[in-house]
Formats: sequence, C-alpha cells, structure tokens
Amino acid sequence: MRRQADLSTSSICLDALSASVAANKVGPPSPACQPDRELVRVQDLTPEKADQLIWLRARVHTSRAKGKQCFLVLRQQQFNVQALVAVGDCASKQMVKFAANITKESIVDVEASVRKVEQKIESCSQQDVELHIERIFVISQAEPRLPLQLEDAVRPDGEGEEEGRATVNQDTKLDNRVIDLRTTTSQAIFRLQSGVCQLFRDTLTHKGFVEIQTPKIISAASEGGANVFTVSYFKTSAYLAQSPQLYKQMCICADFDKVFCVGPVFRAEDSNTHRHLTEFVGLDIEMAFNYHYHEVIDSITDTMVQIFKGLRDNFQTEIQTVNKQFPSEPFKFLEPTLRLEYTEGVAMLREAGVEMGDEDDLSTPNEKLLGRLVKEKYDTDFYVLDKYPLAVRPFYTMPDPNNAKYSNSYDMFMRGEEILSGAQRIHDAQLLTERATHHQIDLEKIKSYVDSFRFGAPPHGGGGIGLERVCMLYLGLHNVRQTSMFPRDPKRLTP
Amino acid sequence: MRRQADLSTSSICLDALSASVAANKVGPPSPACQPDRELVRVQDLTPEKADQLIWLRARVHTSRAKGKQCFLVLRQQQFNVQALVAVGDCASKQMVKFAANITKESIVDVEASVRKVEQKIESCSQQDVELHIERIFVISQAEPRLPLQLEDAVRPDGEGEEEGRATVNQDTKLDNRVIDLRTTTSQAIFRLQSGVCQLFRDTLTHKGFVEIQTPKIISAASEGGANVFTVSYFKTSAYLAQSPQLYKQMCICADFDKVFCVGPVFRAEDSNTHRHLTEFVGLDIEMAFNYHYHEVIDSITDTMVQIFKGLRDNFQTEIQTVNKQFPSEPFKFLEPTLRLEYTEGVAMLREAGVEMGDEDDLSTPNEKLLGRLVKEKYDTDFYVLDKYPLAVRPFYTMPDPNNAKYSNSYDMFMRGEEILSGAQRIHDAQLLTERATHHQIDLEKIKSYVDSFRFGAPPHGGGGIGLERVCMLYLGLHNVRQTSMFPRDPKRLTP
Repeated sequence: MRRQADLSTSSICLDALSASVAANKVGPPSPACQPDRELVRVQDLTPEKADQLIWLRARVHTSRAKGKQCFLVLRQQQFNVQALVAVGDCASKQMVKFAANITKESIVDVEASVRKVEQKIESCSQQDVELHIERIFVISQAEPRLPLQLEDAVRPDGEGEEEGRATVNQDTKLDNRVIDLRTTTSQAIFRLQSGVCQLFRDTLTHKGFVEIQTPKIISAASEGGANVFTVSYFKTSAYLAQSPQLYKQMCICADFDKVFCVGPVFRAEDSNTHRHLTEFVGLDIEMAFNYHYHEVIDSITDTMVQIFKGLRDNFQTEIQTVNKQFPSEPFKFLEPTLRLEYTEGVAMLREAGVEMGDEDDLSTPNEKLLGRLVKEKYDTDFYVLDKYPLAVRPFYTMPDPNNAKYSNSYDMFMRGEEILSGAQRIHDAQLLTERATHHQIDLEKIKSYVDSFRFGAPPHGGGGIGLERVCMLYLGLHNVRQTSMFPRDPKRLTP
Repeated sequence: MRRQADLSTSSICLDALSASVAANKVGPPSPACQPDRELVRVQDLTPEKADQLIWLRARVHTSRAKGKQCFLVLRQQQFNVQALVAVGDCASKQMVKFAANITKESIVDVEASVRKVEQKIESCSQQDVELHIERIFVISQAEPRLPLQLEDAVRPDGEGEEEGRATVNQDTKLDNRVIDLRTTTSQAIFRLQSGVCQLFRDTLTHKGFVEIQTPKIISAASEGGANVFTVSYFKTSAYLAQSPQLYKQMCICADFDKVFCVGPVFRAEDSNTHRHLTEFVGLDIEMAFNYHYHEVIDSITDTMVQIFKGLRDNFQTEIQTVNKQFPSEPFKFLEPTLRLEYTEGVAMLREAGVEMGDEDDLSTPNEKLLGRLVKEKYDTDFYVLDKYPLAVRPFYTMPDPNNAKYSNSYDMFMRGEEILSGAQRIHDAQLLTERATHHQIDLEKIKSYVDSFRFGAPPHGGGGIGLERVCMLYLGLHNVRQTSMFPRDPKRLTP
C-alpha cells in the first residue's frame, strides 16, 4: 500500500484493479486536477439509478469483512446505503483487504454501480439498492480508535442493556461533540433548530418587524448587577449583556416600531440544572402597541404558533428521528393560544393542594405541576400566564393600572417549563425612576437607559425566548445541553 | 390645562372643542378602554383618503404657530405629513395654543380630516394632502430641550454653513443615539442592514446551508492570544471569541456540510480608525467542497452578488435617502465576480509606482489604491484577491500545494476596502500541528481544535464578512460607526 500525501490533503487511494495510486487531489489549483465527476448524494440512490455507475463521497459508517467480500455502510448525514466490495471482475483480493482496513468515520470516494436488492435493507435509509464498488479512495482517514461509537450514542436509554451494549453518557458526548453531532439524532436536532430561527424571523419580517443587532459588551450591569460576567475592556472593565432588552427598547424609542433580534445572551448564574446555560441564544421581540399590551402577547403567541406549525409541517423527519432515541408525545397547541391570569393559575394549584400566597412567585415544581394541570384541562402544551405579581418582576415592568399588586407582564410555557418572560415596559422616565428607586437600583448606572424615554416614547412591550429551551421542549427532550451545539455552563467551557 | 396621569401612561389629552380630558388610556386591561379606532399610517395618506376623518399616531416633527393657526409636521419613521389646527368650527383658540405648546418629538394621537392640497408640499413625504386636526392627544411628551435637532443631524456636510446652520458631530450623534436613529438617514441605513442579513441568510438557506449558533465565551484564545478580551468566568477566566471560525470548522467535521452563522465577534484591538470596531457582526460561512477551494469562493461571491442585487432592487428608497445626506456613486459589481491573483494585484500596484515585495501584506493605503486601479480597469467595486502569501495568513490556512510561498486564501473588497477574509483550511491534523508549531502556537491550547480533524474531515473552506463594513461600503459611507447601531470602540462603551 502506498500513501500519497500532498500539501492540501492526506489521501490514500486505491485503484480497483491495479491497486495503483490514482491522482485524486483535493484542492490543488490547476483545473486539470479537477476530475470531471458528478458526486451523487446518498439520498438520491433509488431504484431509478439501478445499473448506473456513479461516484459518491461519504463516510464509512461501518465495515465488515467476510471471506472474499467486504460490506460497508456509507453515510452522509442522516442517510446511509450498503456497499459491497467483492473479489471478482471488479475487485482484487488486495482491494477487498484494503477496503476492510479503512477505519470507521473515514471519508471515501467510491465509484460503484447501483444495484436493486430483492430484500429491503432495513438497517439503511436507502433500503432498495446497494452499491457494488469498483474503485475506492480515502479522502480523509479517521484514527482507528474513536472516542465514542455513533451507534452507542443514538441508542435509546435502557435498550440493549441485557446484551451489555453501551450507551454514552452526556459528558462523553459533549467532550467529543464533533463526533456526537454526526449522529442522526444530533443532525435532526440542529436542523430543526435552524428551522426555528428561520420561522421566527420569517414570521416577524412578514409582520413588519425590523431585525436589529445589539451590543453584547455593555458599560453597566443594568438589572441590579447580579449574575453578570465581567470583561476586561482596555483600561476599564465592562459586562456581557444579560439580554438585549434595553437596546430593543431604545430602538422602539428610536422609531423602529417593531424589532427583533437573534443573538447570544449571557447569565453568570451558578445553576447546574437541566435547563440553565451560562450562554444561550435569545430570540427577542419588542414592539410599540396602540391601545393594549395584549397586542404584544398576541404577536408573540402567533409567532410561536407559526413556529410550531412550521416544525410540524416541514420537520416531521427530524422530529421522528429524535423520537426514535427520545420518545415523546407530539407537541400540542391551541389557536388562539390559551391565556390564563396568574390568579387563575394560583387557584388551579391550590385546588391541587399547593399552598402558596397570592404574590408568591411560581417555583419550578409548581410551574411543572401547573403545566400538567393545564394540559389535562385544556389539552395544550403551550400557554401564557398573564398578570404576574408586580413584586416578582424587574423594575421596568409596567404595573397594572387597576391593581397595584399586579403587573402587565407574562410568561409563556412549553410542556410546563418557561420559555419566555415578557411585559409591557414603563415608557415614562419619571415612573421608571420611581420604580428603579423602589428596587434600590443605582440611578447613575441606568441613566442613559432612563434618558431614552425623555424625548417621546410610545407604549411598548416584548419578551425574550430561549432558543435552546424551545427546541428541547418542543422535542420533549430533558436537557438543554442536547439543543446547544457547544453548551456553556458553570462547569463546561469546552469544546 | 389638566394633566391626566395613570399608571400605565403619561398622557395629556385635549378634546377639540371642549378642551376636556378624554379617556385615552394606553395599556389598561379592561377591553372597554380600548378605543374602537383604526390608526392610519402616514404613508397611506394619499388623495384617495381625501375628506375622510381619520385617526393617526405620530411624532410632532416640527410645530409653528402663526396667529390663529398652528402648523405641525407629523412624522412616522421616514414619512411625514403636514397638519393644521386652526381656530374655527373644529378648534378653539385654546386648542390652537395647546397644540402650539406640544414639544417637538412628542407622540400624539390626532383625529383629523384629510384634505387635498393645490400646491405640492415639497417638504413632506406626503405631498398631496394635509390634515385638518379636530382633536389632539399627547401620548408621550418629549422634554422641551432636545440634545440635537433632527434637521441638523441629516444636513449634508457643508450645506447651510453660510446661513450659520449647524451640523451635528458624530460623537454627539452617538451619545444621543436614540434621537439620531430617528433621522431618515439612520432609519434607511438600519432598514437596509436588516435587508443585508436577510438576503445573506435566504441565499445560503436556498443553497442548502444550515444555520448554526456558536459560543462566544471560549476557553482558549485560539489565534495566538493577541487582541482577545478576557472574561471572568466563575473561578476561572475565559475569552470572547474573535470569530466563530473554529466552531464553524467543527460543524463541517460534524457532517453539517455547509453552514453559516450571524453573530457578534470581538476584537480587543486598540485601533481608532474609521473602519475598526471592538464588537461587530460577523456573517460567517464555512463549507465542504468537492475538488477545489474555488467552489467556496464561487459560493461566497454569488452570495454577495445576490445581496447586491437584492439591495439594488428592493432598497432603492433607502439608498436614495442615505445619498441625500451622503452622496455616493452607485455600487458596481460584475457577474461572475472578478477574481485576481495576489501577484496580479502586486503587479498592478508596482505599475502604479508602489514598491513592495512579493510576500509583503497589502497596507491599507495600497488596498485602497488597488481598489481604484481595479475600478478603472474593470469597472467593478467588488472583487476577490486570491492566493495570498502564506506568511501573512493564520496558521490554519492551507498552503498552495504548487508554490509553498503562497496559500489557498483570499480577501474580498468593496470600494477598495476589505470586507471578507477567507481560505481553504487545513483539514489534516498532522499538517495543522506542523503549521501551528511553525507559528509558535501553544499546541496544548488548540488541542480540541486539532483533535476535531482526527476522525475524518472533508476538505473545506470559508470566510467571515463584516456586516457593518458591507453596509458602510455599499452605501459609500466613510465611518463604520454610522452602520453600527450602538458602536463599540476602544473609547466608546455607551449607550
């Protein structure tokens, strides 16, 4: 076996019959080196291509030699196909041995003829054909010892335990995220996540919202200074924004009328739970309204409903792929979205035996319990809880003008967990100053924020949605690290 | 004058005839308080609406009292309309006085009849109609002393100097960004910027790219540790990502094939120039390719061309609005995009009298000069410079396999300034280790990055585009702070 190395790739090549090294260069500049080949996609390998000779680039998913034959499964993302190298007209004994020695996860180019099979190949996405390989080239060779096996990483909890088959724990998956992301489950999760962002933006753009970009490095910790990361900034120090909210509001004061942004938000919270990250992606909305802050709630809930519908209609394959490893009930929602008042929620909890005061905040277990009660009564996994007690909300929350104990604020829940917190904001500098003083916030630190409202500000409201939580809860997953590509928590900064 | 304050708004109201306070509550919960009114948009005020009685919410752009009349200009974003309150059947003397006292930039609700005018009102966007106000309510009152006047902030440099009219310097604008963003110029710039992001994503989604979210807090300063912001991270410290590049590449190794992301990038560079920010928005692309890294260049240049076309076709109003204050030549581009080799660029510069070595990097003045030379020769404001000297590029850049002095890397330029830097990346762990060692990079710090390539990695390349630069250069502006809503530089952290 000879190994040809050129600067721009490490490729090992083997011609089908002669075992000679072919000139499969990747990347060199001379057009003469670009083979005149069309590469076929695995998902396009159907019986219509039967008996055609095709080229394919894919990973070696599995490899099994058996006498004079070597069976490979070749994979592209969530699609795979069976391939065969057999001693005969097309391949030498040497070539079968070569193929059998290609390490799993290596990337290969194969020239092969497509053959219809009599019996469906249940273990592959392409069940009606297999490939008979005539030539095979290694484009990138994987090291022989993988830190985890893909088939172990996608095994449902508990399955195969009796046969002593392994599952992979979450830290091992995250430590080796580049490999873990190759599993069908991960591919599906992050394609769906990409869809959530697109549906969010498309819906809002259609409603006349403008996308804005807000700074993440800020000069003052706005909301009292807790849970904020400090950054060294030349000769001074600064902070990482806990949300784009103040900037969204400034855009409303600056006449953008309806805005959204998608970007990272940072929370220096030492919470090691299934649903907290120190950095996550915020889907943020802010809008001026005409007469009532329920106009804002309606815009947000309609946006969520459009996302749910888009996922249901366009991401069924992804949803079912994830369900294979992590079974869950289909996500249910109502149109229009159910809106309950906080006092109604408290009443439902009390009826179920929970003891809590009118102005107490909801604990996490009570949130979940209320989610179950709402699901039983209204058959929905998504609802809004409106009119939170003023005492448990941030200083910039508009009090309820009719009942000083409550506020024009709301949370939204998916499967009983909070995914959005929002409110009508105070748009009057004087009232804002009063409320900040009440919350013992240093007025000097929020001066430029308060000043934004001195030169005419429309009534407005909004909210911030956690992207990873939406994906986790929509799919019925149980840890937000599964829906963050490279999660950050108090104990994890890598990869 | 009575002032009615309720918790959820500070509103001053005046009924047209009686000067009594109307119940124009904003935000209260009872549906009974929501007036049964449709608010008309200023841009919809056309002669078709003549003689209709309408409701409108807008800012008082200007106000001028003259005897028994008060002329207002009412504004919504870039649109405005003339309005009149005159003593007579519709308004009392008291009401005219009230209207005349409403401070500029206050937000008002008016009930008015639409009237066709005989002579076009040149100073307004709605030139064919004016409003005869019957009732006017103050929704949010601006403080009387504005930190800057909008008409000064949009005045072209030099204009009105003889009449002693002021222009507003950039720091004053940025210090009072909430007001500066209300100008027609700012509204147009940021609506166009929103368009750039949308065109970027839509084009790539259409090409089969997947959107990814990459972490901004990272454990190691990847590119040698220079120019990186440090973050306190619980009991340890971390860094802010200078680009999402390493994560984009990991996604390629993780089989996402083609990815993009839009998000903040951070550079702790003490550069106080017209084109440097310490935080800006990166439009990033990374993709596997089949045979040649020019496939990557073609994808990126086509994406840029789609953006240019989209702006040209859908944002003419915005472009012309900006041009009124900042005149510039229309942006020119070719299809397909012009691609020059670095050596060709150097030859053109030498021909123009510049002395430089083959492997020297381009200085900023030489970049600009080359841009002018290319414009003269090829009539394009956008081109690619390919095959940079290896010595001036980062360690992960793929060397040119045919000439060790050069590399498979490229920059892209708009109006002679760099907007993208990109390359084929090394996808072989061994070569990457060699190159990192050559650059004296601590291998321990980039271990998880290098390890990403050990388990099969396809040849790939990409690049990162600076959003603010694209907007600045497309519009022919001269300072990147004009295209950043809340710019960050070594001297500016607020608002």
